[in-house]
Amino acid sequence: MRIGILGYGNLGRGVEFAVKENSDMELAAVFTRRNPADVKIFSENVPVVHIDEIKNWTEEIDVMILCGGSATDLPKQTPEFAKFFNVIDSFDTHAKIPEHFAKVDEAAKNSNHVAIISVGWDPGLFSLARVYANSVLPDGKDYTFWGKGVSQGHSDAIRRIDGVKNAKQYTIPIDSALEEVRAGKNPELSTRQKHLRECFVVLEEGADAEKVEREIKTMPNYFADYDTIVNFISEDELKKNHSGLAHGGFVIRSGKTGENKIHNHIVEFNLKLDSNPEFTSSVLIAYARAAYKFSKEKNFGCKTVFDIPPAYLSAKTPEELRAKFL
Amino acid sequence: MRIGILGYGNLGRGVEFAVKENSDMELAAVFTRRNPADVKIFSENVPVVHIDEIKNWTEEIDVMILCGGSATDLPKQTPEFAKFFNVIDSFDTHAKIPEHFAKVDEAAKNSNHVAIISVGWDPGLFSLARVYANSVLPDGKDYTFWGKGVSQGHSDAIRRIDGVKNAKQYTIPIDSALEEVRAGKNPELSTRQKHLRECFVVLEEGADAEKVEREIKTMPNYFADYDTIVNFISEDELKKNHSGLAHGGFVIRSGKTGENKIHNHIVEFNLKLDSNPEFTSSVLIAYARAAYKFSKEKNFGCKTVFDIPPAYLSAKTPEELRAKFL
Repeated sequence: MRIGILGYGNLGRGVEFAVKENSDMELAAVFTRRNPADVKIFSENVPVVHIDEIKNWTEEIDVMILCGGSATDLPKQTPEFAKFFNVIDSFDTHAKIPEHFAKVDEAAKNSNHVAIISVGWDPGLFSLARVYANSVLPDGKDYTFWGKGVSQGHSDAIRRIDGVKNAKQYTIPIDSALEEVRAGKNPELSTRQKHLRECFVVLEEGADAEKVEREIKTMPNYFADYDTIVNFISEDELKKNHSGLAHGGFVIRSGKTGENKIHNHIVEFNLKLDSNPEFTSSVLIAYARAAYKFSKEKNFGCKTVFDIPPAYLSAKTPEELRAKFL
Repeated sequence: MRIGILGYGNLGRGVEFAVKENSDMELAAVFTRRNPADVKIFSENVPVVHIDEIKNWTEEIDVMILCGGSATDLPKQTPEFAKFFNVIDSFDTHAKIPEHFAKVDEAAKNSNHVAIISVGWDPGLFSLARVYANSVLPDGKDYTFWGKGVSQGHSDAIRRIDGVKNAKQYTIPIDSALEEVRAGKNPELSTRQKHLRECFVVLEEGADAEKVEREIKTMPNYFADYDTIVNFISEDELKKNHSGLAHGGFVIRSGKTGENKIHNHIVEFNLKLDSNPEFTSSVLIAYARAAYKFSKEKNFGCKTVFDIPPAYLSAKTPEELRAKFL
């Protein structure tokens, strides 16, 4: 299976390493908008190619992994490149998934390709956990907790405040809420009760710390509904202690069964990730294998994780899976 | 979707309740080896039918849920009834799954039926957790912990000892081992380090408690490799405090990614169940929906949870799933 990578940032680099873990795959090429000579990749003997030439590679690539961002790259790239390749993306703007799906589905079906969108952990493995648990326990309540991990969107929002030079924001699940859910108490939790927001902020020289802190804590949508901790630190400290890419989270469904619904069940899926982009890219690569199998079966069009039989993600045969994993 | 239940014990009763939770299903009939007049079910206006008449019901049942045991019932029943119905079973003798699969597959394919075997939580949802996590993290280590919950097999083994009137055995995961795994320490754990066995034993009058305790603790395969606690109690106490059907467990994969494999990731799926049979039957019913959809697509033969796209378990449309759960 010959893999292409489009976009060589944290995610693209993660895909490069993930391909090495899978002996049924090889990296065919990395595509970039930058000057290819400026893009240093880890793999030897793998070409770095300018995106303008990507259409010359349709015969050399079985699955193209789109490693761009959901804000501006993927809404254009996935429908565009699904015309030429089987593609995988990690589109994560939840509200726009139906629209994205429709566009990609049309492009993929018209050109006999397979596209799997919104692959990763949320959306992705967390979505799977929700569907499995909801299907098994129709009468129940869902909880998702994220973190501890950096939220890019919230960090960006802080950086847009006047007087802020740099910032990182951690989303932190509140332990006591998590424990109540795990104990089957089915609490009604407000936004504030589920997550805490902790910010590490580097100020511009002469900026008013009190004013910045107030602006952060009262920012609608991003912070106003949360308990927020603001720490002011130096740029050096930010780089040294807050450059990590760890993340994670918890999907829990609590549901009732039986006569008079006296029995409660807790289904929990959780992740604790040292590197959010490397884990996400490992999921992308597993779904690349599924896309390849679907394309061999001529099962074209746009798919999501909900459409993929678990066995299609594995390099093992159905017989091996039944013998060793069932 | 018209559901049939074969075998009306704890599992069959659980299926009866689970059907009520799913508005796209109805219970068509319960089949039993007993005298139907002696089998009292909760549902009104649902016939209880002797198993000898089951073959007259092929037109009335879309999916038959086989609620017998794995030791003697299912190895015969599943291949036999897959000739006449779409069937679901919870066959859980791991070592014999390939043989069972082959027999059921032949029967189902020859008669244009769908059979999904080994459905439940282990095998079942735990197997799925293993395959997803192994596909995403090829370089890693798997851990499964069971409990706290009663092991029927171990309880039976104690009851076979001379002088024992009744017994229940709990399998208990060892917290410190679980925490080491969750912390990403990738420990090598012996059998003894993973689970504790706690037994509640009712003695026959005049039985030698010390001898019974020694026999339990040294029993090969069942107890010799574990730290085992033996408590002697009265029959009343056993009935009062140890009649619950709670169970659960943890499937964890710890895997490494990236340059020099410096990043570790923990993927955990866990269950905490008030009623093992009711949860298992809720899983069976979700897979009954998948079997029904497969049969409409004429995708016949024997399947396992690995072959089923998650969306097939849900009563919701693909559009709803993408909009609400992705």
